[in-house]
Amino acid sequence: MRNVKLLLEYDGTEFHGFQRQGRLRTVQGVLEERFSALLREPIAVIGAGRTDAGVHARGQVANFHTSRPIAIEKLAAVLNGALPLDVKVQGAEEVEAGFHARRSARGRTYEYTIVERAQPSPLTGRFALVLPERVQVARMARAARGLLGRHDFRAFQGGGAETKSTERTLRRLEARREADRVTVTAEAEAFLYQMVRRLVGALLAVSRGELAPEEVQAALRAGNRGLLPAPAPACGLCLVQVSYEF
Amino acid sequence: MRNVKLLLEYDGTEFHGFQRQGRLRTVQGVLEERFSALLREPIAVIGAGRTDAGVHARGQVANFHTSRPIAIEKLAAVLNGALPLDVKVQGAEEVEAGFHARRSARGRTYEYTIVERAQPSPLTGRFALVLPERVQVARMARAARGLLGRHDFRAFQGGGAETKSTERTLRRLEARREADRVTVTAEAEAFLYQMVRRLVGALLAVSRGELAPEEVQAALRAGNRGLLPAPAPACGLCLVQVSYEF
Repeated sequence: MRNVKLLLEYDGTEFHGFQRQGRLRTVQGVLEERFSALLREPIAVIGAGRTDAGVHARGQVANFHTSRPIAIEKLAAVLNGALPLDVKVQGAEEVEAGFHARRSARGRTYEYTIVERAQPSPLTGRFALVLPERVQVARMARAARGLLGRHDFRAFQGGGAETKSTERTLRRLEARREADRVTVTAEAEAFLYQMVRRLVGALLAVSRGELAPEEVQAALRAGNRGLLPAPAPACGLCLVQVSYEF
Repeated sequence: MRNVKLLLEYDGTEFHGFQRQGRLRTVQGVLEERFSALLREPIAVIGAGRTDAGVHARGQVANFHTSRPIAIEKLAAVLNGALPLDVKVQGAEEVEAGFHARRSARGRTYEYTIVERAQPSPLTGRFALVLPERVQVARMARAARGLLGRHDFRAFQGGGAETKSTERTLRRLEARREADRVTVTAEAEAFLYQMVRRLVGALLAVSRGELAPEEVQAALRAGNRGLLPAPAPACGLCLVQVSYEF
């Protein structure tokens, strides 16, 4: 059996997230169905990040095993021929048998994009949250610094998730502006369910003056999701990189 | 009757172009249907540029007349409440009775975006042509300079168009690169049907070495569309600005 590592890009708008969910259209479901038909054997795809419904990716990593003889240098193009327009392989390589896209991953980086526009914008709104207000980046950055490091992040976990531990190490949480575009970058070894969108939701409440940075800290310490606002919309979020040690 | 000028942005992917065409979904058709229902009187919308199926706009201009009392400062938001996600008003102002979005226009600027990527890209391919090759910008620029000025551009007009004169003045045709993104900017008082896409198609043939700049010149002088390649795909084209004297 060969173990194949894939770099994936997708427009999450028309997917019910990455993970297979019965008959719903998901990224994993589409990949497994198309690859199984193409290679004429059942293919199971493992993804590094279980992105939510509507969340995009330009750096998702996945792997699958196959017994078929494949020309690895042409594999990305061959697989893309079988895939729809909204999910495409950007690169494919053969890796050692033990590589597991999720368990071997040592870091995930997400970007959340906010564009300031007085009116909704069809050209930017597909891949960003469009807001009519001026985003207060300095205030967001102050709140973000208070969240860095190892904490129990249960206050930032969406409901219905089952996780053994809700401790995570937030290595990076930064907001930067370029003209009317504000990008929040979040990096951790792994995130809880909805965690990045809930972090951004809290930072936007701070930007609006609805929450003080100290109140975000207090919610974190109390482990109380009820003290924090709803997660920011999925359309602004993109998984940009998954890193591995080797 | 008030005359209202609108600035429009749309994602052309799901439209059969700007101009009303029976029961097909067009930008003009959607605007007229939604505005007529909202204002409870028949509304006719005049657009500055008759963009083709699949072509986008971030600077389309339109106007319509209405007898209804409207609060102009809230009009963009009110109209947007009645519009689908893929076409939105960016600004609305009351203008003099004689203003006609198409006939009063003195210039149209289009941008054509090409992104160099080894594989198809779901995140950039909606609003750009994705090509696996290196685009030869300097060669394209040389061919572009030979097309500037007043010429009979019938060699760059799509079939089936009815136009009294095929003379146009091409004021600007430039290609510039930023990292892996090449943008071709074209400006004229007005363009022929499919003209910008056919100009870009010719420039891309020059980039690939399939045509010499002199052969593009010869096709222009001969007025022979058969000497030139097919138009570049619609997805890369965007109407970015329409200019008026007042």
